[in-house]
Amino acid sequence: MPTISQKGRQMPESPIRKLVPFAEVAKKRGVKVYHLNIGQPDIETPEVALNAIRNFDERVIEYSHSAGIISYREKLVDYYKRYDIHITANDIIITAGASEAILFAMNSTMDDGDEIIIPEPFYANYNGFAVNAGVKVVPIPSGIETGFALPPISEFEKVITSRTKAIMVCNPNNPTGYLYSKEEVETLRDIALKHDLYLFADEVYREFCYDEKDHISVMNLEGLEQNVVLIDSVSKRYSACGFRVGAMISKNKELMATAMKFAQARLSPPTFGQVAAEAAIDTPEEYFENVLNEYLARRDVVVEAINSIKGAFCPNPSGAFYVVAKLPIDDSDRFCQWLLEDFNYNGETVMLAPATGFYATKGKGLDEVRISYVLNVDDLKGSMKCLEEALKVYPGRTI
Amino acid sequence: MPTISQKGRQMPESPIRKLVPFAEVAKKRGVKVYHLNIGQPDIETPEVALNAIRNFDERVIEYSHSAGIISYREKLVDYYKRYDIHITANDIIITAGASEAILFAMNSTMDDGDEIIIPEPFYANYNGFAVNAGVKVVPIPSGIETGFALPPISEFEKVITSRTKAIMVCNPNNPTGYLYSKEEVETLRDIALKHDLYLFADEVYREFCYDEKDHISVMNLEGLEQNVVLIDSVSKRYSACGFRVGAMISKNKELMATAMKFAQARLSPPTFGQVAAEAAIDTPEEYFENVLNEYLARRDVVVEAINSIKGAFCPNPSGAFYVVAKLPIDDSDRFCQWLLEDFNYNGETVMLAPATGFYATKGKGLDEVRISYVLNVDDLKGSMKCLEEALKVYPGRTI
Repeated sequence: MPTISQKGRQMPESPIRKLVPFAEVAKKRGVKVYHLNIGQPDIETPEVALNAIRNFDERVIEYSHSAGIISYREKLVDYYKRYDIHITANDIIITAGASEAILFAMNSTMDDGDEIIIPEPFYANYNGFAVNAGVKVVPIPSGIETGFALPPISEFEKVITSRTKAIMVCNPNNPTGYLYSKEEVETLRDIALKHDLYLFADEVYREFCYDEKDHISVMNLEGLEQNVVLIDSVSKRYSACGFRVGAMISKNKELMATAMKFAQARLSPPTFGQVAAEAAIDTPEEYFENVLNEYLARRDVVVEAINSIKGAFCPNPSGAFYVVAKLPIDDSDRFCQWLLEDFNYNGETVMLAPATGFYATKGKGLDEVRISYVLNVDDLKGSMKCLEEALKVYPGRTI
Repeated sequence: MPTISQKGRQMPESPIRKLVPFAEVAKKRGVKVYHLNIGQPDIETPEVALNAIRNFDERVIEYSHSAGIISYREKLVDYYKRYDIHITANDIIITAGASEAILFAMNSTMDDGDEIIIPEPFYANYNGFAVNAGVKVVPIPSGIETGFALPPISEFEKVITSRTKAIMVCNPNNPTGYLYSKEEVETLRDIALKHDLYLFADEVYREFCYDEKDHISVMNLEGLEQNVVLIDSVSKRYSACGFRVGAMISKNKELMATAMKFAQARLSPPTFGQVAAEAAIDTPEEYFENVLNEYLARRDVVVEAINSIKGAFCPNPSGAFYVVAKLPIDDSDRFCQWLLEDFNYNGETVMLAPATGFYATKGKGLDEVRISYVLNVDDLKGSMKCLEEALKVYPGRTI
């Protein structure tokens, strides 16, 4: 029998999907499961986007331009202007989600064995993209005690080697919800410039900022134009995960010409998704106001509930729709599995993501879980009650 | 300034897109260009597929299953049964076009420096996927004099090394239109089994077979179940290139489990495209009868025209919608550029793909071009007239 590649064997399994079979067990037991484990919002996709699909009247669904439909890219230029980000349509390559944008960026800048520094915890699939591209992820620690703020410069400089090619951040952050301050984003600029590194910034949660705080994009950093790669996606912005439409954006022309060769090999991003995403740019402001108010109410429910549980703690993050919570447990993988296999409170339980999957450093995240607040306030209250009751009886509780 | 990767520098530019700027020159000269250079059909996408999109009534466009929507995969099982291909929904991973399926297959089976044998000429983007995956393409020759039949076993065995992991074929073939016989497909099985290699078969032109000949799928080869990977796509079948829906199919469970890790990292294939592709399985038989009759008429126009030109020759292939023609020219890149920059016949010219881009061996394909017969019969006649007249006056003609 022919063999599997080393790369294939090294590809991590999704830390979230590992639990799916146990959720089936819970359902078979007749237990209702609150899904707080994934970043699939329950918010409706904007009507204006869905209408564009319903009314799409082309007779031949052709390949689009490899960099994406030009009218869409031009409209995106206007979209970014609202955030004081000034680019041209040629600075944009539309991709199949942020996933493909990250792969293009890694493949265009890094070879086998090159290194990318990422503050951990980080979005688990970055590991998979790195293995796919032959790139080594070098984690540096951010901690729950600071709310997962950017690690100090010294932590970056400790791990920079001749193979270091890039730093990657997610802002607002998945899984922590942390929103980087202007000073932190400027610190990233200083490190990238000093060591001549690329700065990849995954800003797909740009719209999800709370507490009157502003999102500071890496695209607004003066002097870093040749180093910055913006990773974007419409998945969260418009609750449109199934569109599979993202973007890789940079003003570095040599980089974009290289990325275009990867884009041309796969011909084009999805046409229907692009049509819907282009229309979505006209989503009324009111939609976002409602969505933000909803998420803010949800965050408050979760943060208040967690911090009222004995021995539990979570920061009050200002972005995205996640929190990482510290719980009085021995092993978050075991706890999350136990919640599905062995626990219920009035016939209900909750599915969480063990934080271990968001750390590259083995042994970290054992007493942390990620909670996605993608359910309505009532369901979140039910979920938090389950969690509180579960922690009272979990055999591996530490206090 | 941070650097570009070696991999990025090695990525080939699309041989077809290289000419795009010169097509712009032709248009600026006021010359009408017949586009026979790309595989974008002019055929209408089936109404039943477009209706599914118009009537799609989900309110939240969610991620689909990473392996694809289950109802779509189950319906595909029925589709394949029509071709006597017997698989289950678990043998299928839906991908963003055949492109992603090839990347998944390469990444799951091959590491940096591993080798894949491909008869040349071959679909140019295989080169790009190979560079992307760190894989070395080892070409073996197929020639126009045999109509681009499968090279003899001895040619395969000459190049098999300890790094050889797979053989890849496209059947019916892009760029040659060649349809492999039962004997040739069985020869592939024998080589793959003897040397324990994967056999990747790109069968996206399955429906496009002429002259009463049947397509023989590698999925029908007994004893090769663990070695075979079927690469598929709806792009050509339903003239639906913009759906970006393909598939990687194999009965090798370890391979599919590995490919699923790559699939999960990128979350899911496009939802709208899958909905349309699922509906497209109900396309009435009449649609294909009309499409095939149309392509057959087109092929006959092209083949007859080429062979009536002094010094030109092309085989009469039984599949796909391409022919590779040998022309009395010094350099196909120069000729195709000249057609756009310097030539017109009654205000018209033709855009062809230089065959050099379909060969991995430098110097091959200099007197060959690929012609995609994706225009109606009248336009094809006009194109062929242009070509005939051009060959009379091209400064680099060889006879």
